[in-house]
Amino acid sequence: MKQLLIVAHGSRRAASNDEVRVLAEKVAQHLQLPAEQVQVAFLELALPSIETALDECFNNGIHEVSVLPYFLSSGTHVVNDVPREIAAAQEKWPDKVITMLPHIGAADTMVSLISSTYR
Amino acid sequence: MKQLLIVAHGSRRAASNDEVRVLAEKVAQHLQLPAEQVQVAFLELALPSIETALDECFNNGIHEVSVLPYFLSSGTHVVNDVPREIAAAQEKWPDKVITMLPHIGAADTMVSLISSTYR
Repeated sequence: MKQLLIVAHGSRRAASNDEVRVLAEKVAQHLQLPAEQVQVAFLELALPSIETALDECFNNGIHEVSVLPYFLSSGTHVVNDVPREIAAAQEKWPDKVITMLPHIGAADTMVSLISSTYR
Repeated sequence: MKQLLIVAHGSRRAASNDEVRVLAEKVAQHLQLPAEQVQVAFLELALPSIETALDECFNNGIHEVSVLPYFLSSGTHVVNDVPREIAAAQEKWPDKVITMLPHIGAADTMVSLISSTYR
């Protein structure tokens, strides 16, 4: 079974973290997947961590996780921090498949999304 | 004349800031606007600042600016910092119209954008 893990930066404001959780629920609905197949993890300042979230996935019998960095630009979090966490998890779970998707700011549809806010 | 100002956080990595500039060019193309009608400013770590960008708009005869916070969650930057900069500019330019759009993470189409990266 496959799962999407949305990785956000994490905020000291609980409401910001909850926004990401709500977004994950909506994505699951949009993809017509059970809610548990779209999970959220945070790089810092909020829980679960990427490590904990991936451990939970794999302990629950998931075989493959696509990690979506919910970041707008390819800063150090996208270039270094998230890949480092993924590499550590891959070493811990060598039989599982972990794929890192492009960060959300690189999505082709970002241009039309921004354009739609202006019109 | 009206203008879109995309306000990003700003990064120490020049490449991250350039990503936002390229995005602005693409948005202008998508909206079929002249490139100069979609500008970029940064809250910190990169230039131009919001203040400088708005001064330039208004000095160039723009009457109305829509400010789009290019942030994923409504953290302190979206709730406090960007509105404070806008309020200061509005006080400086009382005859001009400055509108703050919802931050990009709140866009209705974000759910379908994320879903499209997973499929």
